[in-house]
Amino acid sequence: MSLLDETIAAVAPRDPAAERAARERLDRMTKPPGSLGVLEDVAAQLAGTAGACPPPLPVPAAVAVFAGDHGVHAQGVTLWPQEVTAQMVANFAAGGAVVNAFAAQLGADVVVVDVGVAAPSGPAPGLWDRNVRRGTADLAEGPAMTPDEARRAVEVGIEVATALAADHGCLVTGDMGITNTTASAALVCAFTGAAPAEATGRGTGVDDPTLARKVAVVERALARLDGERDPLTVLAEVGGLEHAALAGFVLGAAAARVPVVLDGVIAGSAALVAAALCPPALEHALAGHVSAEPGHALALRHLGLRPLLGLDLRLGEGTGALLASPLVASAARALADVATFDSAGVTEKA
Amino acid sequence: MSLLDETIAAVAPRDPAAERAARERLDRMTKPPGSLGVLEDVAAQLAGTAGACPPPLPVPAAVAVFAGDHGVHAQGVTLWPQEVTAQMVANFAAGGAVVNAFAAQLGADVVVVDVGVAAPSGPAPGLWDRNVRRGTADLAEGPAMTPDEARRAVEVGIEVATALAADHGCLVTGDMGITNTTASAALVCAFTGAAPAEATGRGTGVDDPTLARKVAVVERALARLDGERDPLTVLAEVGGLEHAALAGFVLGAAAARVPVVLDGVIAGSAALVAAALCPPALEHALAGHVSAEPGHALALRHLGLRPLLGLDLRLGEGTGALLASPLVASAARALADVATFDSAGVTEKA
Repeated sequence: MSLLDETIAAVAPRDPAAERAARERLDRMTKPPGSLGVLEDVAAQLAGTAGACPPPLPVPAAVAVFAGDHGVHAQGVTLWPQEVTAQMVANFAAGGAVVNAFAAQLGADVVVVDVGVAAPSGPAPGLWDRNVRRGTADLAEGPAMTPDEARRAVEVGIEVATALAADHGCLVTGDMGITNTTASAALVCAFTGAAPAEATGRGTGVDDPTLARKVAVVERALARLDGERDPLTVLAEVGGLEHAALAGFVLGAAAARVPVVLDGVIAGSAALVAAALCPPALEHALAGHVSAEPGHALALRHLGLRPLLGLDLRLGEGTGALLASPLVASAARALADVATFDSAGVTEKA
Repeated sequence: MSLLDETIAAVAPRDPAAERAARERLDRMTKPPGSLGVLEDVAAQLAGTAGACPPPLPVPAAVAVFAGDHGVHAQGVTLWPQEVTAQMVANFAAGGAVVNAFAAQLGADVVVVDVGVAAPSGPAPGLWDRNVRRGTADLAEGPAMTPDEARRAVEVGIEVATALAADHGCLVTGDMGITNTTASAALVCAFTGAAPAEATGRGTGVDDPTLARKVAVVERALARLDGERDPLTVLAEVGGLEHAALAGFVLGAAAARVPVVLDGVIAGSAALVAAALCPPALEHALAGHVSAEPGHALALRHLGLRPLLGLDLRLGEGTGALLASPLVASAARALADVATFDSAGVTEKA
């Protein structure tokens, strides 16, 4: 059995007994019932993922930034040069990016995984070289990668999740890849049935003519797919190497029973692949935020995930998910620490 | 000059030069312009408050939980017994409440300030006895407190903010007071012109008949005010002692040029008092979240504040604002740490 098949087989749904115990405890805690809103759902989910109430604290968090390049860059769908992917990988490794600043502030670890960058990355601390292919082919013209490459990139994500889950309580998705919102839009359309014009956005901030080209590219890719629904085939046809790795990362986290916080549209579209491969995997995922990219809200709705933050972020790198990680930790901490009406001698309402 | 008048005189608007420097730096950082969304506004605001770019990191945070009781409890506007206020004060002091769990997780300090609890609190670590009056009078029947009591409670808030600002980079509002959403609704109506039925909510979760009584009580209080707009008079007529202290806390933070993160509808209605007393004070405030209580969104709209979180919280204690504090710290950290395109050798978009 392949690592992918083994991982899918290892994923189980959340534990309903632990989740029920969490709900019961939440109702006995010294607060009005339900008054922690969405964080009560988060706390119960964490218990279900861990199979224990209270669950272990989901700390420290580790964000894995999967980086890849995209052949579709040739279609003029972004204003940024492709070499920025490799330059940002170096920036992450040097600690100079926003994700590094947030991680330093929040006590999280950052690993950068080259799964598909076009230019070789030099060795650096925190940089994992797992390159499967030096950038995808142009998804407007033909398959972005072979099914075998897609599977290998998924397995890179599984391996990274497994390694990080050994000493982290919370996994956080990150990504870097110039033009990767184009592949994300194609994946969102393929898995949700959304129209390209609906799911395709301005990414880093493209102008109207570039957006029109981007929509046309997604339309061509979708036409080629012709309703294909096999998850790995769709991924190979229109996805990116970082999307593949992120899908594997979600599966690996679920198999390890560690919560995974999803970042923006790249992670959201990759999670659609993971959900199609293994529906219960998404029971262990949380949506860190909803990005300004329109395909992201479509993906989250399809997945039934409510985003924790809505701050109009559109940066990627894992920044939105990382910002949400203290909320996840705080929900777990409350479930573990807060006194009950009985224990604190507080009178309940009539 | 009274402490209140001195404090109002000491409040200055944000520094536009520091804010401009922050905006310029945000545009040179290695990220697409504007891609940090709301956090770019937060970062610029922090620079303006500090008068420096980058501003000092807004850490550690300190949440001050101001506790008070309400004579309007006699009107049957809540299902909780009044003694729960004092019991929760003891719970905070013992570290057993949700605000304590969140603070422990997020590295924040908690102080509990008895500014108006009906029953005397025993001495405990972290509990500050600043009781001005053992609960307000019934605001449905007459003034909740005298103008002098209102002023003294405001000055308690100023003193607490000043003390905490000496060794904390971020102040967070907290509150506890059975029935305090009733006084909040009255304040929101008085300062925004909203109708009582619009601004009055279910608080900790009251049933329909209780909600109807609550709306009727707010209507009676408003009728007595008869369009009065003097902030201290309105506060004394229909507010609570914790609302008064919170208004002072906002003023004290602004005078000390330390950012203050507002919690839910209690803080929001108190901030209306602070804004009426001293409009520039609110330039240094951030809305931590928007609560499920309808008057809160009305207050935030009136103040022009966009909430950082929307998690359907309705607990109070400072929990929502505390959860937002890592976002504020992360925004500042990014402004201080992130490389620029030049320094990192990353190519800018065409």
